[in-house]
Amino acid sequence: MGLGLYIEDCKIGTTYKTNGRTIDQSDISLFAGLVGDFSTIHTDAEYAKAMPHGARIAHGPLTTSCAIGLFAQLGLVDGTVIALLNFSFDMKSVVRGGDTIHALVTISEARTTSKKNSGVVKFSYDIRNQNDVTVQLGSMTVLVKSRAAEQGLVI
Amino acid sequence: MGLGLYIEDCKIGTTYKTNGRTIDQSDISLFAGLVGDFSTIHTDAEYAKAMPHGARIAHGPLTTSCAIGLFAQLGLVDGTVIALLNFSFDMKSVVRGGDTIHALVTISEARTTSKKNSGVVKFSYDIRNQNDVTVQLGSMTVLVKSRAAEQGLVI
Amino acid sequence: MGLGLYIEDCKIGTTYKTNGRTIDQSDISLFAGLVGDFSTIHTDAEYAKAMPHGARIAHGPLTTSCAIGLFAQLGLVDGTVIALLNFSFDMKSVVRGGDTIHALVTISEARTTSKKNSGVVKFSYDIRNQNDVTVQLGSMTVLVKSRAAEQGLVI
Amino acid sequence: MGLGLYIEDCKIGTTYKTNGRTIDQSDISLFAGLVGDFSTIHTDAEYAKAMPHGARIAHGPLTTSCAIGLFAQLGLVDGTVIALLNFSFDMKSVVRGGDTIHALVTISEARTTSKKNSGVVKFSYDIRNQNDVTVQLGSMTVLVKSRAAEQGLVI
Amino acid sequence: MGLGLYIEDCKIGTTYKTNGRTIDQSDISLFAGLVGDFSTIHTDAEYAKAMPHGARIAHGPLTTSCAIGLFAQLGLVDGTVIALLNFSFDMKSVVRGGDTIHALVTISEARTTSKKNSGVVKFSYDIRNQNDVTVQLGSMTVLVKSRAAEQGLVI
Amino acid sequence: MGLGLYIEDCKIGTTYKTNGRTIDQSDISLFAGLVGDFSTIHTDAEYAKAMPHGARIAHGPLTTSCAIGLFAQLGLVDGTVIALLNFSFDMKSVVRGGDTIHALVTISEARTTSKKNSGVVKFSYDIRNQNDVTVQLGSMTVLVKSRAAEQGLVI
Repeated sequence: MGLGLYIEDCKIGTTYKTNGRTIDQSDISLFAGLVGDFSTIHTDAEYAKAMPHGARIAHGPLTTSCAIGLFAQLGLVDGTVIALLNFSFDMKSVVRGGDTIHALVTISEARTTSKKNSGVVKFSYDIRNQNDVTVQLGSMTVLVKSRAAEQGLVI
Repeated sequence: MGLGLYIEDCKIGTTYKTNGRTIDQSDISLFAGLVGDFSTIHTDAEYAKAMPHGARIAHGPLTTSCAIGLFAQLGLVDGTVIALLNFSFDMKSVVRGGDTIHALVTISEARTTSKKNSGVVKFSYDIRNQNDVTVQLGSMTVLVKSRAAEQGLVI
Repeated sequence: MGLGLYIEDCKIGTTYKTNGRTIDQSDISLFAGLVGDFSTIHTDAEYAKAMPHGARIAHGPLTTSCAIGLFAQLGLVDGTVIALLNFSFDMKSVVRGGDTIHALVTISEARTTSKKNSGVVKFSYDIRNQNDVTVQLGSMTVLVKSRAAEQGLVI
Repeated sequence: MGLGLYIEDCKIGTTYKTNGRTIDQSDISLFAGLVGDFSTIHTDAEYAKAMPHGARIAHGPLTTSCAIGLFAQLGLVDGTVIALLNFSFDMKSVVRGGDTIHALVTISEARTTSKKNSGVVKFSYDIRNQNDVTVQLGSMTVLVKSRAAEQGLVI
Repeated sequence: MGLGLYIEDCKIGTTYKTNGRTIDQSDISLFAGLVGDFSTIHTDAEYAKAMPHGARIAHGPLTTSCAIGLFAQLGLVDGTVIALLNFSFDMKSVVRGGDTIHALVTISEARTTSKKNSGVVKFSYDIRNQNDVTVQLGSMTVLVKSRAAEQGLVI
Repeated sequence: MGLGLYIEDCKIGTTYKTNGRTIDQSDISLFAGLVGDFSTIHTDAEYAKAMPHGARIAHGPLTTSCAIGLFAQLGLVDGTVIALLNFSFDMKSVVRGGDTIHALVTISEARTTSKKNSGVVKFSYDIRNQNDVTVQLGSMTVLVKSRAAEQGLVI
C-alpha cells in the first residue's frame, strides 16, 4: 500500500507529516540495553534529577531512529528505496521519557544519478515534540529506483 | 572508572578501539519493534533472501547506535560530556544478523568554545565488521567540560 | 506439577480463577513493537489523550494473550493439551496501561472426538479488570488427550 | 498516509495482501515472556524436538497478532476505525521459528449500523506461510466511521 | 492452583523436577541489555569463538534466574512465601546459547522460626543441561508462612 | 579501556563504587518475562498494593544482576577474568520500581591458586538504594589471570 515513489516522483519541497509517537522511559531503557549505552543521564534517575534537564533523557539516536521509523510507516519509498546512504542530525532540544515526537519530512534534494538508473533523494527532518518545539534537525539520504530504468528506457 | 576527559585532555589524532559486539537477527528485530521501522529488508527473511545482500540486514541507525554504545562503554567522556551536538554517518557496507562490529574512534576536532567554559570534540568513527571491512564512516560531536572552567580559572 | 487434565477429567461448568496481572504501558509498547501494530491509539499519548478513553489502550489481542498466559500458568492442561484449535473474543471494555486483569475460565464444552482417542474442550473466558468489570468475553478451544486412549483402552 | 476507509468505501470482496514478516524463535521467546505463557512447546527445544512438529512453535495468538500488525501497517482504516469488536481465528497449521507469514485480508461484511452514524466491517484473514500454506483462518470485526455522519448528513 | 506449602508441609528430602527451558542467544543478549553486563564473552561472537568454550555463554545469574523461574512455575510456595532470604550458587559448567536447562530442587532445610509464626526453607538446586550435566549447584532460602500461625494456634 | 586487574593487582580492602542505575517497573516486567518468574508480588499491582511493601518489587536476582552489571561496567577485570565461580547474596530490603541502586564492591579475598597460574578473588557487594539503605549484601567470586603465569614466570 506504500506510495513507492520513484526518483521521477520526488518533487523538491514536498513535505510529509508523520504520526506522533510517545517515547517512554521504558523505551529509553530498552534502547540503552539494546545498543549498550548506559550513560547515567539515560539510566540513573537520581543523577538525572540533579542535572539541568531534571530527568533522564532519550539517547539522541533513539529519537532519530523513532522519527525514521515514523517516516517508514508512511510507506513513501516502500519497495523503491535501494539503500540508505547517509543520515546526519543536530540535537536541538532534549526528549524526556513521556514526550511525544512527530516529524515534518521534506524532500530537499532529488537528482538522477549519473548512470541515470537510480536517484538520490535527501529527506530533511524537523523532529518536534508535543509542544511543537524542534528537538532535532537533520536529514536522511537514500538511493531510490528510477521508473525509466525499471521500464527499460535507460540504457 | 571512566577517563573523564576534559577539553584540555583531548588530543587530535588519538584513536581508541572499542570492544566487539555481535548484532544478531534478534537485535535487528528488537530494534525494528522499538523504533517502529518494519521495512521488509529488516523483517522479511523471504524477501531479503531474494535481494542483493541475501539476508535481512541491520537498520543503519542500529549499527551506528551500537557503535556509539561500544564507545560509551570505554567511559572516555564519562562525567565530562555536557551534551551530544551532532552525529552524521555514511553507510559503506551492510551488517547482516550475526555480524560482529567494532569501531575505531579518533579525535578529529577539539576546540575550546568562544566562552572558554567548555569544548567541542568531534569523534570520527570507522565502524568495521569481523572481516575488518568498514561498514560505516561518520562522526559524533559532543560538548565537553573545560577543566579550567571547572577550576574557576575562566571568568 | 500441572493438573494434566484428560478429556475424561473435564466437567462442564467447572470454573477456574487465574492470578491477576498488571498490563503496564511498557507492555503495550513492547507488544506494539513485537507484532508491528503502531496504531496511534496504542503509541501516541497526545492523540490518545484527546480520544474518548483519555489514554493509550492495550491492543485487544494483548489482553487476550495475557489472559491465556495467566490460564496457562495454572497448569490445567499441562502435558495433556495436543493443540490449540480456535480462539474467539469480543471486546467489552478497554484496558489502559496500569490496569490489572484476571480471568474466570469455565469449561463450557467437553466432548470426546469421533475417533475417541482425544477430546475437544472449550474454555470460556470472562476477562475482568481490577474493578471486576468485564473487558473481554470469549473462548479458547483445545484438543486434549484421552486417558482411555493413552492407556490403550481405545482401539 | 493511510487510506482512511469509511464505511461507505468498504466493498465486500475487496482483498488486500500484507507484507511478509518472519517470526523468529526470538519473537516466540519474547512473546512467551510478555504474555506469561511458558508452555514447553514454545520454550523447551528438547521437548519440542520429540513432538510431531519437531521444533518449538509460535503461540497461536502471536501469529494472529503479527498478521493483524501487518494489516495495520497497510493503514487501511487509519484514523477511521473507532473500535475493535471481535476477532476469531482457527489454527490450520503451525508456525515454527523462522517461518515467514503474510495475510490475505478480505472485506467479507460491511454494513451501516442502525443509528447510521458508523459501520461494522468484518475483515476475513487467510494467514499463510512462506510456502503459501494457510496457517490460520479467521476474522477481525471493527467499527468504522461513516463519512455521511462525519459530514453531518445523518441526523 | 499452586501447592501453597506451609512450613508444616515442607519435608526435608522431597525433590521436585522443573520443566525444561531453552536459553537462546537472544535471551543472553536481552539479559545483557537488561542488567547492563556487556562482557565480551556474552556479546562478542568472534571473541567467544576463540575462547575455550567456543561460543558466547550465558551469564551465570541468567541461568540461575531461569532456574528460579522454572521453580516458581511449579507454584510450590505460591501464596505462602513471605520473602526471599538468600541465594547462593556455584558455577559448574557453562550454558551456551541453545542449551536447555531444568532443575532438580530438593528441600534441604526446613525449620520453624523462633517466634514460631513462620518457617525457613532452603531449596537446594541442581541445575542441569540437556545432557543431564550439572551446570550450577546452589540454594535459595525463603521465609514461608506457618499454618499454625495462620490458624491462630501460635500466640 | 578496562583496568584488567591480575591477581597480583588485587589488594584486599580496596573498594570500588559503581554508577547508579534506576530499576523501573518496566525492568521488573521484562525480567519476569525473560526468566519466567511471574510471582504476583512482581507482576500484579493490585495484589502488591495490599502487601507490606505496598507495591510490586524487583526480583532479588534482578537487583543482584544489575549490581553485577554495574560492576562489569567499571571494566575492573575486563580481559583478565577467567570464570565466575560463585555468587551468594542476602536480601536486606526490597527494591521497588523506580528505586535507584548502586554498589560498593570490596576485594575481601584474593589468593593465588595452588597451581599458581591464576587467582581467586572475592568481591563483596553492598548494594544500596537512593537513600543509601543497603538492599543486598553478598559476594561474587571469580577466577582471574596471574600476570606471572602470563609472562611465563610460573612453571
